Amino acid sequence: MRMLINVPETVVADALRGMSVTYPDLTVDVEHRVVMRKGVPYEGKVALVSGGGSGHEPLHGGFVGRGMLTAACPGEVFTSPVPDQMLRAAAAVDSGAGVLFVVKNYTGDVLNFDMAAELAEDEGVQVAKVLVNDDVAVTDSLYTAGRRGTGATLFVEKIAGAAAEEGAPLDRVAAIAHQVNEMSRTFGVALSAVTTPAKGGPTFDLPDGELELGIGIHGEPGRERRGMMTSGEIADFAVDAVVDDLRPDGPVLLLVNGMGATPLLELYGFAAEVHRVLAQRQVPVARSLVGNYVTSLDMAGASVTICQVDEELLRLWDAPVATPALRWGC
Amino acid sequence: MRMLINVPETVVADALRGMSVTYPDLTVDVEHRVVMRKGVPYEGKVALVSGGGSGHEPLHGGFVGRGMLTAACPGEVFTSPVPDQMLRAAAAVDSGAGVLFVVKNYTGDVLNFDMAAELAEDEGVQVAKVLVNDDVAVTDSLYTAGRRGTGATLFVEKIAGAAAEEGAPLDRVAAIAHQVNEMSRTFGVALSAVTTPAKGGPTFDLPDGELELGIGIHGEPGRERRGMMTSGEIADFAVDAVVDDLRPDGPVLLLVNGMGATPLLELYGFAAEVHRVLAQRQVPVARSLVGNYVTSLDMAGASVTICQVDEELLRLWDAPVATPALRWGC
Repeated sequence: MRMLINVPETVVADALRGMSVTYPDLTVDVEHRVVMRKGVPYEGKVALVSGGGSGHEPLHGGFVGRGMLTAACPGEVFTSPVPDQMLRAAAAVDSGAGVLFVVKNYTGDVLNFDMAAELAEDEGVQVAKVLVNDDVAVTDSLYTAGRRGTGATLFVEKIAGAAAEEGAPLDRVAAIAHQVNEMSRTFGVALSAVTTPAKGGPTFDLPDGELELGIGIHGEPGRERRGMMTSGEIADFAVDAVVDDLRPDGPVLLLVNGMGATPLLELYGFAAEVHRVLAQRQVPVARSLVGNYVTSLDMAGASVTICQVDEELLRLWDAPVATPALRWGC
Repeated sequence: MRMLINVPETVVADALRGMSVTYPDLTVDVEHRVVMRKGVPYEGKVALVSGGGSGHEPLHGGFVGRGMLTAACPGEVFTSPVPDQMLRAAAAVDSGAGVLFVVKNYTGDVLNFDMAAELAEDEGVQVAKVLVNDDVAVTDSLYTAGRRGTGATLFVEKIAGAAAEEGAPLDRVAAIAHQVNEMSRTFGVALSAVTTPAKGGPTFDLPDGELELGIGIHGEPGRERRGMMTSGEIADFAVDAVVDDLRPDGPVLLLVNGMGATPLLELYGFAAEVHRVLAQRQVPVARSLVGNYVTSLDMAGASVTICQVDEELLRLWDAPVATPALRWGC
């Protein structure tokens, strides 16, 4: 066990205490596990609330701020937050313009956000939901009916968040979020297993020198296991998977995402290969983001997400954003 | 070997190709290994050039941009760049106002930047240098006479870069850089060894369940090895080390830096403990930064850097910056 922790039981609470002292623009309710923008509710603006199991940082707490999420609800590691968290967040951030729940497609998250939406509506909060299900690797999985929600969550939260920031109404913000999800595809690769604090060791077995093609962000199995491939070969496989599925006929946003333990030096080299394959497939890249954004604790590996954009989505992508993990234009 | 690479020989070139397609505001000369801001030289402004071995990303290339470095020269992994790189960078970025070399204190870097400074001055470029040597763990080390340069490099590059951006003359920019280094201290901890592409395996032996207190960013030995400690115990040890050495009598900037493979979830929890110890030591924290900034490939662990600031240094810290890794205010 090579963890920088106190005890497994307090990992999430400890992290929230750390966020609280690090980010003066955020309100972190450590007890109730809600991360919010300061100054909520914002008059006349739709609020975005997301959340999910911890262990994927900076997702979601690191995406709270101007032009992106209004609040995030972290669950235990790899475990859905509970409805009470979303309900509390929704009540705190709703200005009367309504709340969009951004939900990654995992059974627990879907159930809990559904329940929270009902409870919030009972309290007079208008709620819309968007389900993120961009991962093309597998149709169903350990924790999912249908495709898993992974890297596209960043695109959905950024672009819908920009629309909300501009004052778009709830139905419009939700429609944009749906559009971004519809136009996004992800494929991920693991070069090592992931270690959770509770288990204290790898959650699955991936021998040195093998990789898992189509891994999920909790280490769920993907399409196949192979002997080690080069960065270029992995890029070929991953880009083919997302392009064959989406079949884009216009420019895309590109996220080359590290799973956590892959050095940035390697991730940049992988990004070069991903660009090479996209060029070969005649897919123009409008904007590029490389880094650790939707992670899986200490897993080595990477994922590729593309999102086809029209002029409006691209404009919203470029709009100012000020969060711990994503920041430009302000 | 769990690396996302093509072959060890092309790791740095591949990464530079990736940076080149990812960051439109940078000019990346892959052949000559120089990363520069677009639009250089900037009339009337002092330029900052840094560099060092690769494997510490985002340092230094990720710190090139408005308000920070003007150029960076990446060497091979954990190997100093050569004087020709710094010379080429200096010639390209010098507006006539001179160039500050920011040099981490490692024998190879010092020699090569010294030689580059002489060559640049022969070509009519005025050069000043600042040596960064903030690591309190050991006095001399495998690659160092004197203390190693680590986390404070970020503070030096950001704060001196802000002064240069405002149009301060070379002697003033250099004086500020020296002041930042003088007022900074770092202490790092490794929870795992580091794997270099060339070696394909760990560069030193650190059994599971042990940690190295006072580790260097190339895995150089520190002060002592112990059995696993809690995040809180490590924070006590690291903060005591930097506070006892600096003895600050005013507010500090704080960098809680990940070595590469430590999950952000853990790093946030560690940051909470670092804040706790600083409060106990009655050291006020003016600004806080948490993330992977000065890394050591896939090493697990973290370092703590503090920099005591006066009003002017704090103002320069807060000034706008727009680089791949550090961005605010613009």
